[in-house]
Amino acid sequence: MNDRMNDRMNDRMNPRPTLRAVDGGVTAPSGFRASGLHCGIKARRPDLALIVSDTPATAAGVFTINLAKAAPVYLCQEHLASSGGRAIAIVTNSGCANACTGPQGVADAREMGQLTAAALGCREDHVLVASTGVIGVNLKMDKLRAGIPQAVAALTPDGGPDAARAIMTTDPFPKEHAVEVTTEFGAFRVGGMAKGSGMIEPRMATMIGYLTTDAGVDPVMLQRVVSEASRYTFNAITVDGEPSTNDCVLALANGASGVDINENLYPALFEGCRAVAHELALGVVRGGEGATKLIAITATGAATESDAWTAARAIANSPLVKTAVHGGDPNWGRLVAAAGRSGAAFALEGARVQIGPLVLFENGRPFDERAPQAAEYLTGKDLTIEVNLGTGGTYSATVWTCDLSADYVKINAEYRT
Amino acid sequence: MNDRMNDRMNDRMNPRPTLRAVDGGVTAPSGFRASGLHCGIKARRPDLALIVSDTPATAAGVFTINLAKAAPVYLCQEHLASSGGRAIAIVTNSGCANACTGPQGVADAREMGQLTAAALGCREDHVLVASTGVIGVNLKMDKLRAGIPQAVAALTPDGGPDAARAIMTTDPFPKEHAVEVTTEFGAFRVGGMAKGSGMIEPRMATMIGYLTTDAGVDPVMLQRVVSEASRYTFNAITVDGEPSTNDCVLALANGASGVDINENLYPALFEGCRAVAHELALGVVRGGEGATKLIAITATGAATESDAWTAARAIANSPLVKTAVHGGDPNWGRLVAAAGRSGAAFALEGARVQIGPLVLFENGRPFDERAPQAAEYLTGKDLTIEVNLGTGGTYSATVWTCDLSADYVKINAEYRT
Repeated sequence: MNDRMNDRMNDRMNPRPTLRAVDGGVTAPSGFRASGLHCGIKARRPDLALIVSDTPATAAGVFTINLAKAAPVYLCQEHLASSGGRAIAIVTNSGCANACTGPQGVADAREMGQLTAAALGCREDHVLVASTGVIGVNLKMDKLRAGIPQAVAALTPDGGPDAARAIMTTDPFPKEHAVEVTTEFGAFRVGGMAKGSGMIEPRMATMIGYLTTDAGVDPVMLQRVVSEASRYTFNAITVDGEPSTNDCVLALANGASGVDINENLYPALFEGCRAVAHELALGVVRGGEGATKLIAITATGAATESDAWTAARAIANSPLVKTAVHGGDPNWGRLVAAAGRSGAAFALEGARVQIGPLVLFENGRPFDERAPQAAEYLTGKDLTIEVNLGTGGTYSATVWTCDLSADYVKINAEYRT
Repeated sequence: MNDRMNDRMNDRMNPRPTLRAVDGGVTAPSGFRASGLHCGIKARRPDLALIVSDTPATAAGVFTINLAKAAPVYLCQEHLASSGGRAIAIVTNSGCANACTGPQGVADAREMGQLTAAALGCREDHVLVASTGVIGVNLKMDKLRAGIPQAVAALTPDGGPDAARAIMTTDPFPKEHAVEVTTEFGAFRVGGMAKGSGMIEPRMATMIGYLTTDAGVDPVMLQRVVSEASRYTFNAITVDGEPSTNDCVLALANGASGVDINENLYPALFEGCRAVAHELALGVVRGGEGATKLIAITATGAATESDAWTAARAIANSPLVKTAVHGGDPNWGRLVAAAGRSGAAFALEGARVQIGPLVLFENGRPFDERAPQAAEYLTGKDLTIEVNLGTGGTYSATVWTCDLSADYVKINAEYRT
């Protein structure tokens, strides 16, 4: 689908914006500061992150579809509504999700926002709040009461990497990315950070993802770009098929670059946000619990776009597919079986399975002589698998997933011990 | 739902039939013989099973919803249609699923039936054919041409256990069960066997399950009892959320007991079939790939019956729930999160989670002081978990699943190596 979107963009705007990766994550755009530190919610590692815009920024977010939403998710939605889509800060703790914590959880999320607003001297509803970690445990508010003023004091214009590290839970590495977008009307930057790495199948967003930009964007357009950019990035990844209670993507746009986004420049903003979100989303999968391989699963030949997503998701979440890839087994039968039971229209006689460059099944015929080559291909870390559903339809969708290893079991069997 | 069904039965029939477990599996009912042997499709273990009724029996089946159906599934449906629901024999090989094998696979399934019919001297469409094992590999027909006459020669009235062993693939133990049903009009028996143990989330049937009875039953009633008995047994289990290409439950009723089933006796036949199917289905889960625990997941307080099934299935297939149970962690937050993202109506403030006898979350309040007791409970092998969806609805459903262990990954990463 992205090719077609790009074509549409070309029609609307010429020349195309150029994108260049830059360092700094969420603090790569002008006018943002961040910090990350250890306040005591976790035993040792950093657990408190703060992102602050020097001026009130436009703000937007997309949130989990899980009906067991965490308290901070509700608070973000309330603040975005009451502020009319403006915010100055995002405060995040890791180590405790503040989910399923009842009225106390709601009060704690609110106090977390109030503490931040007081330390920054800003409006309460200009603070967005997020939490990630264990479900069903209350926040250690004494730690936050001491930690939040420290986090404000530690804010620096190059604090992005510290913040990215402080939102990690079981993530093996921090996820951040930033690009500079150059247009005929000037240049702006988009930065971002995200975390995984279990309970990941965001249907609206990822577990937590933040985008910052120094472009000037109105709230409606920022909401639109976050939703559209998330669709093919954060919403197209899965680690274990588990949309979490805390999924959210938040975006802040402070206009510090002097480039204001209008309809003509929207494609440039979209490309910048999509590029950052794409890298972050793939990072979440690469750092998925127990993951050793990144797998792009593309369903083609689907009768509808919805079928393409359904089939790609079913394959990407199939434990048999994920274990086969883990074991380096080009077991195309499991790919066909997952597509066949996905609920999408499927015609076995027209189906085709391609692992990397190798077609292993086509027109009802297996090509098992290619299995050794395919097994060799699967020893790689960055894999593509395509399943044509055989319906003669032209729709396709790509979902990124990871392999399923014994380490996933170990991490999750021992998560709270 | 079973209580209500039992109540309905009591209304229709008094006294209730009495059930008694008996030995012999599929050959426990009169007039059935079976055999199981090694013909060479697998390297060493038994791989060919035959069940034969002494007289043409009534036959019925339920089959996979996977659109990538295996060749023998189509052949069974064709034979049941052309024979008007009659059959004498079921021939089954393990080690090769004969799925995704194109026109050659269809020809092979047909020849497998023809070989059996020739050796038995019966009509071709009185033979039902099933295969289980690796997908995408053609049958070794030379082995079957030699093996099927040997299997006919080996038939004995106590061959049920041999047959049950010969349909195993990754199953750690054979699954068979039989009961004698005593009614005021006489006694009959129901026997059965089944196999697992991966690619298990039968939506119409299990991977393979067979029921035999010496009751006399017409084809319509046999189809009805197989469908209804499967619903709360084979269709209510999951190992890995993967409905296979070969799922089927087949039933043969030969009338040898002299008891003919009419509407009055239908509840007795249902109870007998349900009892056998229940034991077999639970056996499939207990023997699930890498399984160490059997877990009954009950969703209660659902707004609709469909919601109850949806939520119970989502929890039962959640890798985070399954790994937590494997690790002995009473992580009720994952149960709530799985219910919340299942698609079923869910109200967090009314939700309740009970692990064994212990309520761990109710009215928005966690009872973490009970976690040590719950962890102790989870060291058992036979567990119950109940999640009330909090909607105030009265529907419920139970799905049986197993834990997810590192052995599941190992078995499936190395399945074909």
